Amino acid sequence: MLHAIVMAGGSGTRFWPASRAALPKQLLPLAGERTLLEDTVARLDGLVPPERTMVVTAARLLDVVRRQAPALPEAGLVGEPCKRDTAPCIGLAALLVSRGDPDATMAVMPSDHVINPAATFRTAIRQAEALVASAPDRLVTFGVRPTYPAESFGYIQAGPPLAVGPGDAPVHAVASFKEKPPAAVAAEYLAAGTYLWNAGIFVWKAATILAALAERQPECLAHLGRIAAAWDTPEREAVFAREFAAIKGISIDYAVLEHARDVAVIEAPFGWDDLGGWSAVARQRGADDQGNTFVGRQLDIGSRGTIVHAADGHLVVTLGLEDMLVVHTPDATLVADRAREEEVRKVVTELELRGWKEFL
Amino acid sequence: MLHAIVMAGGSGTRFWPASRAALPKQLLPLAGERTLLEDTVARLDGLVPPERTMVVTAARLLDVVRRQAPALPEAGLVGEPCKRDTAPCIGLAALLVSRGDPDATMAVMPSDHVINPAATFRTAIRQAEALVASAPDRLVTFGVRPTYPAESFGYIQAGPPLAVGPGDAPVHAVASFKEKPPAAVAAEYLAAGTYLWNAGIFVWKAATILAALAERQPECLAHLGRIAAAWDTPEREAVFAREFAAIKGISIDYAVLEHARDVAVIEAPFGWDDLGGWSAVARQRGADDQGNTFVGRQLDIGSRGTIVHAADGHLVVTLGLEDMLVVHTPDATLVADRAREEEVRKVVTELELRGWKEFL
Repeated sequence: MLHAIVMAGGSGTRFWPASRAALPKQLLPLAGERTLLEDTVARLDGLVPPERTMVVTAARLLDVVRRQAPALPEAGLVGEPCKRDTAPCIGLAALLVSRGDPDATMAVMPSDHVINPAATFRTAIRQAEALVASAPDRLVTFGVRPTYPAESFGYIQAGPPLAVGPGDAPVHAVASFKEKPPAAVAAEYLAAGTYLWNAGIFVWKAATILAALAERQPECLAHLGRIAAAWDTPEREAVFAREFAAIKGISIDYAVLEHARDVAVIEAPFGWDDLGGWSAVARQRGADDQGNTFVGRQLDIGSRGTIVHAADGHLVVTLGLEDMLVVHTPDATLVADRAREEEVRKVVTELELRGWKEFL
Repeated sequence: MLHAIVMAGGSGTRFWPASRAALPKQLLPLAGERTLLEDTVARLDGLVPPERTMVVTAARLLDVVRRQAPALPEAGLVGEPCKRDTAPCIGLAALLVSRGDPDATMAVMPSDHVINPAATFRTAIRQAEALVASAPDRLVTFGVRPTYPAESFGYIQAGPPLAVGPGDAPVHAVASFKEKPPAAVAAEYLAAGTYLWNAGIFVWKAATILAALAERQPECLAHLGRIAAAWDTPEREAVFAREFAAIKGISIDYAVLEHARDVAVIEAPFGWDDLGGWSAVARQRGADDQGNTFVGRQLDIGSRGTIVHAADGHLVVTLGLEDMLVVHTPDATLVADRAREEEVRKVVTELELRGWKEFL
């Protein structure tokens, strides 16, 4: 049976001050009325029932996740005691779903991307499920056709096409995985036409990914095995904390995908945006005639290309701004030149240096 | 005896959102730790005792004024039921101080200007008091030597010098009063060297200004007389409301000064700033090496020429701003291009049009 594993442990800093350690990107309504996590869970409706959906998040975020995914049973919420990247997260999920369903197929996905339309996403996941059903050792990834020479994504080099049924998205064997490239290399990838952005969405048998981890990351899997063994005992929490902390963090790409023999990539038939910053938010929400995107209570006189995000009924008035970013939250406000959006991360670093923890 | 009349009824909109109808400019700590009203009252220390100091404000501001001027007796607080410009305000004050001191001299001053040093101000007021003592029919004004061709001030054209004692500030007869001039005229005034900015500070006998009002504004004075007559009766509030509302608002300049025969102007020996906007605040507070003026909890990366005013411990982070203005208050935030500072008034007009009264 198909299980959904939603990875919701991210703690990005690019949306500060809207995003905080206690309320990161995926738990915010950045692209619309619902949070990205809520959208991600809703997208599974009709594909995977709540009892086969698991959200893996940070332990400190469990309460918020529980409120945002009220349909999920408590057993479907996993709170990692510390951050260890995607391989331990996926390995643990594979062990847990295997207990009740040894033949489980897992669709693994981030919780903080924008994907539309949901029906196309579900169709694509079913296509991946079929690809795995026909070749159980296969690992299926999703690639997004690049529209610009992005330096912030990993790339998947598509190899020979694999035969698929009519109406389905193109599928290729994966020739190689590429790390985030410098600009010149990204431009080459774009020109070549055979490189896709790695969307971080995977479909495979739990047994297959566990076998791969056993081969490539035996220590990691040993720790995870001890956690799974204690899962239904009073020691779960203590064992989880101890064993998970002992794992070396590593991504599933580095740990498994780059070394695997049978990896396929489906060219994503759905719209995809990793929502990497406020400009992406503006792209998703759309702009007025002057290129402004305003969320919240707002009054503007003569601004252009400006993004305003305000919460809680606070009024933000903008006057004559050009390509600016204003993010208001109850305790902190950011006003930035949009051209320096990438440096928002520096703000968080500076706050850490100053010990202003209440704003992190 | 010398009495001080502090006019604190202003309701300027240039400092929105820091200034509101319920907390206008003079009641804000714009130039330092104390509010402008607090500074104005403190400046009188050693010149006029609290029992001879009167603050005339709007009735709705009485509570805040009372908190900011705790040393003043209740009899020294007058709350106008509506706004009627300076002539009715000064006329009523003259009537009220005359009741207990028929020979009273009044020093009338705004509450929302920055004046330094206080001792020099006190010396200058004493000089004006002496000028009035030697010529009881004289009206004394203060003029500030212009430093740029300001269009936002009225001007006083200085005539022949009047003899004064050694060490005192230059005194001239007033040749004429000039309204706020257009730029070209302001430039001529500046070049001529005989025009001073009208600081709105006046010293005269209560009896003299009342005589002038009797001549030029008999109706106004009649209304004021009925208010003064009811002042110590249970009808004070009702009569004040009815009679004051019936007065036509007019400034003391238009009503009296432009027509008076013996008007002198003292060239102000003190530093004076009418604090006409946020750039004036920055001038008063000073700027860092990059021309930034930050008030409140603040973190900046690479901004220049930027003013940030934040209240209540709210953190404002600025990133790469150039010549911007950020004003944060608990319910509303303004972000503006400093070059468009004058248009902050438009914001208030727009809020009124939209009926967003909670932000006014």
